[in-house]
Amino acid sequence: VAKGVEQKTLKRPSEIINELLGARRICVLSGPSHAEEVARRLPACVVAASHNQRLAQEVQQVFMNDRLRVYTHNDVPGVELGGALKNIIAIAAGICEGLKLGDNARAALMSRGMIEMGRLGVALGARKSTFFGLAGIGDLITTCVSRYGRNREVGLRIARGETLTEILKRMEQVAEGVWTTRAVVQLARRYQLDMPITQEVYKVLYKGKPPLEAMQALMQRAPKSELVDL
Amino acid sequence: VAKGVEQKTLKRPSEIINELLGARRICVLSGPSHAEEVARRLPACVVAASHNQRLAQEVQQVFMNDRLRVYTHNDVPGVELGGALKNIIAIAAGICEGLKLGDNARAALMSRGMIEMGRLGVALGARKSTFFGLAGIGDLITTCVSRYGRNREVGLRIARGETLTEILKRMEQVAEGVWTTRAVVQLARRYQLDMPITQEVYKVLYKGKPPLEAMQALMQRAPKSELVDL
Repeated sequence: VAKGVEQKTLKRPSEIINELLGARRICVLSGPSHAEEVARRLPACVVAASHNQRLAQEVQQVFMNDRLRVYTHNDVPGVELGGALKNIIAIAAGICEGLKLGDNARAALMSRGMIEMGRLGVALGARKSTFFGLAGIGDLITTCVSRYGRNREVGLRIARGETLTEILKRMEQVAEGVWTTRAVVQLARRYQLDMPITQEVYKVLYKGKPPLEAMQALMQRAPKSELVDL
Repeated sequence: VAKGVEQKTLKRPSEIINELLGARRICVLSGPSHAEEVARRLPACVVAASHNQRLAQEVQQVFMNDRLRVYTHNDVPGVELGGALKNIIAIAAGICEGLKLGDNARAALMSRGMIEMGRLGVALGARKSTFFGLAGIGDLITTCVSRYGRNREVGLRIARGETLTEILKRMEQVAEGVWTTRAVVQLARRYQLDMPITQEVYKVLYKGKPPLEAMQALMQRAPKSELVDL
């Protein structure tokens, strides 16, 4: 079982498998499914994505039961990237929560964060609409609000004044968003994408920008229309 | 200041204004903006929607400051309906939380709930994509997770075994989702729309269906593809 993306290249598991093992029939399973809850047999809904719809349906049949509901999908890069890019937004949401900026601000970060994830996703060959589904906003919501979220936890600690070095030293499990942020900032530059939330998280994590200033910077951007993003 | 929809007809405020006062230049402002937090000057992002883009920009300029970020939009029915339909999903999310089904299940309810809101929205003249924005999923997230949410509160109490009659007797402020659910069930029948979450909330509120059975029914529906909804 594998998830996430390669640190420097942002290569997805399915890409790496195809590179190392040659072309394979691949199906990826992702969505809001914190292991701690799935293991306790609590209900969850996920997507099974494959270029081969028959394979996606096969995986759907195998995994679906009264505790796990599986939807088929065909956007493999979109579904894989959703589960990796959400971690950046979860750090931002953790910072927002830690600074006690409220539920309105955090929901706005998630809503706008999903748009930002989609923007990079499209540049990497995914479909925008995938990020509006379970593997995008669905997974993002769980990661941002759940007490099991390690990336949210990084944001909470940053807001409390801890440095990234201190946080990483004390964490037992990896908060992969820390590395994904760095890789995505480089990709955003290469593709000339506007990714303001990721940029601010990067400045806080790696450039010592005070978290409150980062949140304020997001509020003070030029006025725009939401239509261009939906 | 007005929000929501008329109980029996689901008419939107802008429709009622146009009916009673004749055609007017109307702009609606909506999004994740619980009053309790806005009043404390905490940051929030909303959309200003009008058929007249110049008017939307005017409203954007008037309201925008370092605590309130306003995005323009042109889908008036979509933005109005987002703020009303989310309340049904918030009741469902409250039930899910009250039954301790976990963050995965609640995120799935929100994700699939947004799809359901969009389905009815399209039948009523809105655009599907509007529900993927601040006035849709953004507002829905706040309403589902915030301790200020009255509709979430209804769901929590239902899960604890209280009846709707008892809950309404003791509530000081209106939980409009209780009435919206009833109106939407009728509309879903008229337009022959598949709205499983709304249907289950309706059965729990008005037909005495045990909340856990309602949640289980949602998990046991026939397998499907997510592609048809995005």
